[in-house]
Amino acid sequence: MNTKDLNNEEIKKLFGATVRKLRTEKAFSQEVLAEKTGLHRTYISDVEQGERNLSLVNIFKFCNALEISPADFFKLMEEA
Amino acid sequence: MNTKDLNNEEIKKLFGATVRKLRTEKAFSQEVLAEKTGLHRTYISDVEQGERNLSLVNIFKFCNALEISPADFFKLMEEA
Repeated sequence: MNTKDLNNEEIKKLFGATVRKLRTEKAFSQEVLAEKTGLHRTYISDVEQGERNLSLVNIFKFCNALEISPADFFKLMEEA
Repeated sequence: MNTKDLNNEEIKKLFGATVRKLRTEKAFSQEVLAEKTGLHRTYISDVEQGERNLSLVNIFKFCNALEISPADFFKLMEEA
């Protein structure tokens, strides 16, 4: 997919879907991911549902917790 | 560089430095980048100085304006 063609809602949805994919692949619950990121479980849930326009720093927290580099995270997102 | 080791300030600084590097490589002024992203010139300047924790949607605006995919942008950032 060419990410240039995504609108703002689609960007957030695709980001969230990629988080959920990686989280479930690692068999982390939302609670575990909340603990690993230092963010609240409801925030994790909102992100996965594409309801959050999260910040650069929080993007890095998700990538670190999911044990993936930001470059590889966005590559996965682009391949979705 | 392993981006896992970056603190929040370093993440923002490195993001901004990568924007500036790509912008100058393309010979875009900050005004041109402002026009291409639809963001204010002072915001562009703040981002380049690492003073903004910008959002996912704005990260995509920068990447689109700089004609690079988010995955390739973060790869460059990791290689800095």
